[in-house]
Amino acid sequence: MRTPSAFNHLRHLRNLRILPIREIGIRIGAMSIRMAAVQAPVIPIVGELIRTNPGTISLGQGLVSYAPPPQAMARVGAWPPDPADHKYGPVEGQRDLLDALAVKLRAGNGLDLSASRIVVTAGGNMAFMNAVLAIADPGDEIVLVAPFYFNHEMAIVMAGCRPVVVPADRRYQVDVEAIAAAITPRTRAVVTISPNNPTGAVYPEAALRDVNALCASRGVLHVHDEAYEYFVYGEARHFSPGSIPGAAAHTISLFSMSKAYALASWRMGYMVIPDRLFMDVNKIQDTILICPPLVSQAAALGALEAGRAWCEPHVARLARIRTLVLDRLAALGDICEVPTPDGAFYCLLRVDTTLPDMTIVERLVREHRVAVIPGSAFGAAGGCYLRISYGALEETTVAEGMERLVGGLRVVIG
Amino acid sequence: MRTPSAFNHLRHLRNLRILPIREIGIRIGAMSIRMAAVQAPVIPIVGELIRTNPGTISLGQGLVSYAPPPQAMARVGAWPPDPADHKYGPVEGQRDLLDALAVKLRAGNGLDLSASRIVVTAGGNMAFMNAVLAIADPGDEIVLVAPFYFNHEMAIVMAGCRPVVVPADRRYQVDVEAIAAAITPRTRAVVTISPNNPTGAVYPEAALRDVNALCASRGVLHVHDEAYEYFVYGEARHFSPGSIPGAAAHTISLFSMSKAYALASWRMGYMVIPDRLFMDVNKIQDTILICPPLVSQAAALGALEAGRAWCEPHVARLARIRTLVLDRLAALGDICEVPTPDGAFYCLLRVDTTLPDMTIVERLVREHRVAVIPGSAFGAAGGCYLRISYGALEETTVAEGMERLVGGLRVVIG
Repeated sequence: MRTPSAFNHLRHLRNLRILPIREIGIRIGAMSIRMAAVQAPVIPIVGELIRTNPGTISLGQGLVSYAPPPQAMARVGAWPPDPADHKYGPVEGQRDLLDALAVKLRAGNGLDLSASRIVVTAGGNMAFMNAVLAIADPGDEIVLVAPFYFNHEMAIVMAGCRPVVVPADRRYQVDVEAIAAAITPRTRAVVTISPNNPTGAVYPEAALRDVNALCASRGVLHVHDEAYEYFVYGEARHFSPGSIPGAAAHTISLFSMSKAYALASWRMGYMVIPDRLFMDVNKIQDTILICPPLVSQAAALGALEAGRAWCEPHVARLARIRTLVLDRLAALGDICEVPTPDGAFYCLLRVDTTLPDMTIVERLVREHRVAVIPGSAFGAAGGCYLRISYGALEETTVAEGMERLVGGLRVVIG
Repeated sequence: MRTPSAFNHLRHLRNLRILPIREIGIRIGAMSIRMAAVQAPVIPIVGELIRTNPGTISLGQGLVSYAPPPQAMARVGAWPPDPADHKYGPVEGQRDLLDALAVKLRAGNGLDLSASRIVVTAGGNMAFMNAVLAIADPGDEIVLVAPFYFNHEMAIVMAGCRPVVVPADRRYQVDVEAIAAAITPRTRAVVTISPNNPTGAVYPEAALRDVNALCASRGVLHVHDEAYEYFVYGEARHFSPGSIPGAAAHTISLFSMSKAYALASWRMGYMVIPDRLFMDVNKIQDTILICPPLVSQAAALGALEAGRAWCEPHVARLARIRTLVLDRLAALGDICEVPTPDGAFYCLLRVDTTLPDMTIVERLVREHRVAVIPGSAFGAAGGCYLRISYGALEETTVAEGMERLVGGLRVVIG
């Protein structure tokens, strides 16, 4: 059996994920045990497989195909307005960007902000890491809904904390009773993502209100990731739990400029945190980053000038591609089940097979030149799962990729 | 007594720095204990004091006064060469930048790189955090030489680890025997900085060879921060311990583009790590950052084209300002002692007083309109210390600032 070494490494590391953070342990070559317990980043591993198999269509990484708004590039073209802008800026971000984000968060998300602070970060991932370090100590627990976003789990383990994984239901919706049952005295937060990566599920307002109320009643934080807030389809509506009256004190809301505004390589995200966490998040960001890159903050400010209206035609195009993807998948019949995704640009297939997901991913790339992401990276358990991302390609390329995927799955699963 | 609330907060936090990371503790408002044990970032606090006292000359933050090289801005002006550059890049950095860094590290630092990897980071601070998480578990110890760079200590505490502080000698030189005595079975690394922040000391090659050999013999990493490598004066020479034959396996070298190339707001740094740590650092950076900002990497590539030759006239100008600073300080006579700094753009005064350093800093700003950084932020113990940074201002402004500082110290300590 041909197994590339990169995957051997992944499997090896995945077996180690149950390792406890021991107080004193046996170490190899002065490497930390905490990192042996962190899964290998799946995107670069699948990326390497794609590079070594030229012609592969990637339905892998979560990206959009379009370029950033011209307003963003105009701001960058005129940057820096002042030579002093080559020096460090405020830890929490530039005043003009913070002001523009406050306008957006009030008008677009219904946040009050009177008891909250906004912190600009170098991407949404950094916002999550800031949150974990600010609220949880080594040994503390953070509840994730599975399938989860892999970098969330990785951040928790890296911080010396313990991810407590609560499965979503069969439709990938949040199971509030199961979350309630998972909360212990060591729990510091419950994490939700809507629209969801990797499932595309959009949680209804009522479900998010239930999770948020649960967190309030149990004295834990509700960390809600809204990176895909503008990517909702059909009747689905995005809801920000930070807008619930009284929620500000126990809610951390995470946002990204990478998806809606196509600013992935610029690394721009932001978070809304309770006032009392500001000094600690400030310490964390000062230590890890000092300040978000100022040139990227200029791009972000331009993107906010373009605003959601600029994003809408792109989302409408993605809605058509989503329909195409779901139509093609229907042809697979009983081989796979796909709870209809109402948001983001993902769907997560539940495949009827006993083959390991990584074996399927590998064969799809090598033999059919199409790449998807294995569900195990997202902690998807109780079956074989594959994530499709349809945001990064033109419609015709997605159509060709889906042909290969559907044909390939028929062969591989048989 | 007029004490601004920001300082009350600092004092409160500093009293908490001895708090152990308890397994289960009493928490206020779902904040982590680990962050209560981290000192408040001193630069923003002094910055706020400066803002509220207009006309203050800042001898505070570690910055240079000049603008980035034109080659850097030319690269940014032509960026992106490809619309795909708005998408994520490789976790460890762009290939062209990594190649240019390899050329620089071989020719300029004498590194061999055959058993090492280079990782581009969003600033030197992030490189240090990557290193700590890759090599140390909660409860592990990392040896710092005091006075230390405050963000190093903060990163160690945030990671749940324990900084073990070994004082430098009276001349701010490294005391290898004291370091040896501080190493325990829990020690994972020894951290050195040369040219040093906050003292300006340059460690001789022999001392760095001793530290590096000690680390090898005791099975710990030598983490060496070379952010100020080009800023050496007179007879002093910079030496990279990563260039010692056999050192690659136990040496982590940290670099920054913020100082020499004036790219502070672009957040660009890099690290050289032993091969075996690459996967773990990759996981860490994927989780915290995904990839360094691509536009900043373009600027960094342009800066390397300019190269050290471009920096030399700026360093020569700083050498003159350094002479001016030391001349003025000589006028203080016995009030303060200043071991001659051979590098960076700092000097650390040892002031003959029983006043707390923050009281002096506060009075210097309020009453004399000049700002310096309190030595306690750097863990300087056994006396009252103040850090002067002379890199960020024109010569005439430094001269005026030094007049105020010397006059102010006479009054305050007097």
